[in-house]
Amino acid sequence: MSKILLEHGDGGLLTSRLVRDIFLKHLGRPQGPLEDSTIVDSRPRIAVTTDAFVVSPLWFRGGDIGKLAVSGTYNDLVVRGARPAYLTCSFIVEEGFETVQLEALVESLAAEARRARVSVVAGDTKVVQAGQADGLFIGASGIGFIEDARELGVTSVREGDAVVVTGDIGRHGATLMAARLGIKAAPGLASDCHSMTYLLDVACVPGVHCMRDITRGGVVTILCEIAESTGLSIQLDENGVLTAPETSGICRLLGLDPLYLPCEGRAVIFCEERSVPSVLETLRSSRESTGGEPLLDPRRAATVTGTQGIVSMVTMYSGTRRLSSLTGAQLPRMC
Amino acid sequence: MSKILLEHGDGGLLTSRLVRDIFLKHLGRPQGPLEDSTIVDSRPRIAVTTDAFVVSPLWFRGGDIGKLAVSGTYNDLVVRGARPAYLTCSFIVEEGFETVQLEALVESLAAEARRARVSVVAGDTKVVQAGQADGLFIGASGIGFIEDARELGVTSVREGDAVVVTGDIGRHGATLMAARLGIKAAPGLASDCHSMTYLLDVACVPGVHCMRDITRGGVVTILCEIAESTGLSIQLDENGVLTAPETSGICRLLGLDPLYLPCEGRAVIFCEERSVPSVLETLRSSRESTGGEPLLDPRRAATVTGTQGIVSMVTMYSGTRRLSSLTGAQLPRMC
Repeated sequence: MSKILLEHGDGGLLTSRLVRDIFLKHLGRPQGPLEDSTIVDSRPRIAVTTDAFVVSPLWFRGGDIGKLAVSGTYNDLVVRGARPAYLTCSFIVEEGFETVQLEALVESLAAEARRARVSVVAGDTKVVQAGQADGLFIGASGIGFIEDARELGVTSVREGDAVVVTGDIGRHGATLMAARLGIKAAPGLASDCHSMTYLLDVACVPGVHCMRDITRGGVVTILCEIAESTGLSIQLDENGVLTAPETSGICRLLGLDPLYLPCEGRAVIFCEERSVPSVLETLRSSRESTGGEPLLDPRRAATVTGTQGIVSMVTMYSGTRRLSSLTGAQLPRMC
Repeated sequence: MSKILLEHGDGGLLTSRLVRDIFLKHLGRPQGPLEDSTIVDSRPRIAVTTDAFVVSPLWFRGGDIGKLAVSGTYNDLVVRGARPAYLTCSFIVEEGFETVQLEALVESLAAEARRARVSVVAGDTKVVQAGQADGLFIGASGIGFIEDARELGVTSVREGDAVVVTGDIGRHGATLMAARLGIKAAPGLASDCHSMTYLLDVACVPGVHCMRDITRGGVVTILCEIAESTGLSIQLDENGVLTAPETSGICRLLGLDPLYLPCEGRAVIFCEERSVPSVLETLRSSRESTGGEPLLDPRRAATVTGTQGIVSMVTMYSGTRRLSSLTGAQLPRMC
């Protein structure tokens, strides 16, 4: 069957063939028979997250919706200091979708799960009529183990903390915008989409207080959220935030600000001043594959400066301006 | 803002307002600040499940997509003998969707979660352009605690086991088909959609081996799946399977077979013959609210008879015919 039919979603014979020939083939079979839920070993404390993935286009330089579903979920767990262990994935497929494309995306999802050492333990597939979805959407949830008494999170952020940004920003957003508008981007422009496995090591560096992955709204929106929820002020140093020339090129062309563009493989790390060298060293020496995108070039990019709950930026010409959350941008379906 | 805009999904100011004014309002705030993942207490063994909900229409007699997302996930956990504890929900909303409708559905989801005593611990919202989804889809995952050494599942099914069906079948499917086709159904016809909380008690009855909720493909498809995965034969007694007159009426009108229609609040229970009276008594005496639909009328409806791996039915006229999984039916978007 070269295309997905409505009957692939009705729970009968074609559904079980689809599950066997595509999902179990690539994601692996559970040891026992398939059941309504899967029983797995756990820990006394776990981190739980969920995301809907609706990225458009489904394939982009540096990744696809399958890889993104794994890495996006992985990153939400690892930034809390949790060791990602299990994923669940539900697929909403539009009738008429090419079976070979579905298989390629499931294969990519499975490959990223292996790379990140997480198991896909439950799944579901629904098929909707042509025109009632746009190709494929994926709902993913993740469970990670908290193996340490220490809990990373915004409540641990302190005045005087340094903020490290793990690499150049805006790649994911710029890559998608170039692809959608059919702009011939520089060969070096690819999404930073990957599972940030090395953050497991960063979480163990003494003095690390909080990590957040930079997604929708970009680095500034993340900092604004943290400033708002903690009441602390954060001062960003424009010279500390890297943007690759190929990202800047697309941004200039389209009038986008890389500070507000989503990433899918970058994080902000709040830590004590004295921990900055260890954090940078841990990031630079990461031996985990990052899927081919440029090596990390982490920088100390901001400081928690006071208690007014605002975010400002010292520009490269030493001016200071106040920053606010993303508002009114037309950047749908970035993840 | 009376309609959902693309900006509600971009991660900026409107997204955080939507989260605050609709999702947190009804689903409750976590104790600490919002993070990328939520840290919760767990157990050494857990059951995990996921489903995409794409039901059409979004509201139907007896339920809606919000209630269904909770009960469908709950039921997948409870049939394994797990105590459902946590849910995660991701929402894919079509641009232009009425905000008041979204809120009503989230309110219904929250009400069913309270009734079933599960906490929604993580969520996500994406907005896609008008025409790229059909109103609203929900991805839900669930985590349940395994508190018993005993594990319910198809591997525990034995030759000689009795099979109890917990109530009349086909309500959910018949209700949706009548609604879609604009058929004026009998006043008594409503979906059986509810969280089967009483199955927590049934799971503790000695001699209960396996439970499965009856969803896509109906009671026959579930029995065929179990026969195929265990290699055991199951003989269904047509007289033991109840269909309400209002369900039968719609089925006759539309040429549907209730044996293949989905339910959303019915289960098959495999148990030892001697356990049947206790199982029936536990189901009949359930004091948990079932959301207004008719009281349960459980029946012993089948027997595990041999080792040929086939499903057959003794008809009400004492004939025997072989049954197979649902194949080629056009019953999309039932859940």
